[in-house]
Amino acid sequence: MQVSSRALVDPFIVMDVMEKARALEAAGRSIIHMEVGQPGTPAPKGALKALARQMEEGPLGYTVALGLPELRAGIAALYRRWYGVDLNPDRVVVTAGSSAAFLLSFTTLFDAGDRVGLGEPGYPSYRQILKALSLQAVGIPASVDNRLQPAPADLEGHDLHGMIVASPGNPSGTMLSHDALAALINHCAGRGIKFISDEIYHGLHYADRATSALEISDDVHVINSFSKYFSMTGWRIGWMVVPEDQIRVVERLAQNMFICPPHASQVAALAALDCIDELEANRAVYARNRQMMLEELPKAGFTRIAPPDGAFYVYADVSDLTQDSLKFAAEILEQAGVAVTPGLDFDPRRGAQTLRFSYARSSEDIAEGLHRLKTYMARRG
Amino acid sequence: MQVSSRALVDPFIVMDVMEKARALEAAGRSIIHMEVGQPGTPAPKGALKALARQMEEGPLGYTVALGLPELRAGIAALYRRWYGVDLNPDRVVVTAGSSAAFLLSFTTLFDAGDRVGLGEPGYPSYRQILKALSLQAVGIPASVDNRLQPAPADLEGHDLHGMIVASPGNPSGTMLSHDALAALINHCAGRGIKFISDEIYHGLHYADRATSALEISDDVHVINSFSKYFSMTGWRIGWMVVPEDQIRVVERLAQNMFICPPHASQVAALAALDCIDELEANRAVYARNRQMMLEELPKAGFTRIAPPDGAFYVYADVSDLTQDSLKFAAEILEQAGVAVTPGLDFDPRRGAQTLRFSYARSSEDIAEGLHRLKTYMARRG
Repeated sequence: MQVSSRALVDPFIVMDVMEKARALEAAGRSIIHMEVGQPGTPAPKGALKALARQMEEGPLGYTVALGLPELRAGIAALYRRWYGVDLNPDRVVVTAGSSAAFLLSFTTLFDAGDRVGLGEPGYPSYRQILKALSLQAVGIPASVDNRLQPAPADLEGHDLHGMIVASPGNPSGTMLSHDALAALINHCAGRGIKFISDEIYHGLHYADRATSALEISDDVHVINSFSKYFSMTGWRIGWMVVPEDQIRVVERLAQNMFICPPHASQVAALAALDCIDELEANRAVYARNRQMMLEELPKAGFTRIAPPDGAFYVYADVSDLTQDSLKFAAEILEQAGVAVTPGLDFDPRRGAQTLRFSYARSSEDIAEGLHRLKTYMARRG
Repeated sequence: MQVSSRALVDPFIVMDVMEKARALEAAGRSIIHMEVGQPGTPAPKGALKALARQMEEGPLGYTVALGLPELRAGIAALYRRWYGVDLNPDRVVVTAGSSAAFLLSFTTLFDAGDRVGLGEPGYPSYRQILKALSLQAVGIPASVDNRLQPAPADLEGHDLHGMIVASPGNPSGTMLSHDALAALINHCAGRGIKFISDEIYHGLHYADRATSALEISDDVHVINSFSKYFSMTGWRIGWMVVPEDQIRVVERLAQNMFICPPHASQVAALAALDCIDELEANRAVYARNRQMMLEELPKAGFTRIAPPDGAFYVYADVSDLTQDSLKFAAEILEQAGVAVTPGLDFDPRRGAQTLRFSYARSSEDIAEGLHRLKTYMARRG
């Protein structure tokens, strides 16, 4: 059987890095993981406890397609807690991670052939999911002056049906200010470009909090997840917020495409919403790690970095050190024992000159990784 | 924002039945649930125990996209146990339920506009998922003489890029014999029609076991799930088997579209593979329920039924009783206190004259439901 043309998506480069790191570890080497995009911490204790209890009590069968009503209410309440926004819980759609939310959002909004803009650098899967759904990804290079976030001027001249934006961004960790996000949303509204706000790193900020698109407009899709702030990557549980008049359409799609999000993960996620102390302690670790990164990376020679506002990444321009980030990352892994991600995953145009460093692991790991980077880079000269 | 045209999929009629049943129960009525397509039993005890243990030990972060290697090996071993087939574990792709497997399979095999055949009656979501992916569903009426399973002759005259077949079928519960399945697969191979075998009800048979498409050809997609035989619906965990030369393509799609299946569900599923006694006890309950259905439904006036070979449904031709299965099902729910599914979910052409009765719940429930049906139908005259 022949595969379809839309099936031929690009590989994730970071997966190859992870595989090489695994092979080196299997051969006895010690590797510090600055390539991974996930917390080293498990789901909060309260979440695990709630699920353990539920496993003894209920059959954990299918839930309704949009998710447990109490979880949807809990997520709506989070919008009051985090942003002071009153949100109708009916607009909350619980999904199997933000991945399922992207699939739902893109099919809800776009027909085959439609053109969807995304800032470069950005999360690589946007582009591949769009392709798999027979949509056209339109890469929009973001400027360093705008801290690698797209601005209305960047969209001029692009014929778009939709636009997806992440703040804080991956790999940059930079945020759009309230005004900058409002300018983008209003620009898109004025041109009939459907706006999707990926807010998966919300909760993980180190000065001002991020602005939700829902503070600016109700006529957007907002996508979020329990993976990052709530430290529940492997549980595959997230959500989206849709306009009121789309609830029924999204519900029917969700019924057919997913039946329901994982029930056990919904139970754990509901309890995680209340585990504030543990999650804030995690955030304090990231804040400490971030501080170390900003102090030590320049000493290793990685001087061209925009201090990240949120998430757990530092994105470095290494054009003074290499024109081949793939080779450079392989060299760092091999020689320094530190796994990092070449920028080509995030930016097909300029990514040969960038690296992403994650600081999602323990502070001990980050300190050791920075030590190794400094030693290696000094030796490299 | 306008929704796309592909987003406008049909509602699940059974969901409306479930909602009406819930409302009646909330108003104090007792309802017997013969509408649901899921076991009343929880995941096997060994599966819950394995997860409880793992929750104390590991962070349950992302797994690799194709699933835990030991789970893929365990599933491959199931093919030896069930069918005597040697299967390379690399060909096993663990998915978030069969739902994610359909999304992966359809995007792997078909481009926008491609035509995919499905037997009528059949699982309603095939049609809706195909539409959401900008594919064309081609309904192929199956004949009562073939026990509502498609045959090569039915495919003549249809221009198809693919064909999806389920044996045992939902709603019919009927199976294709080894020869009948081989005839279909060979017919499709000869015409370049890509073949997808939905084997989600395998393990649930009441005489001969079902034949897997893998016993006939390696050049097919096989989709299965832990939802039915393994009693793990809400865990959203299933798998597909793909040809060797498609593993990398499917892996890249899975990385981008799903990242990974739910880690907790993978841990539970791995242990469930060994819970044979408990699962066979469940099957004995279904066998008893099936026997009751076949004996008592005719006494209630539902005489036109093909005895199901597997799954946990009886599909009845009620054309002697009604021309409006929607109204008839509502009447049975309201008057008899038994929720059943109108055939229109499964067969847009002939479903106005059919009903599906599920016997997935406890034998006590089934006995009570049959009693109510007989009483009501006698009164109805």
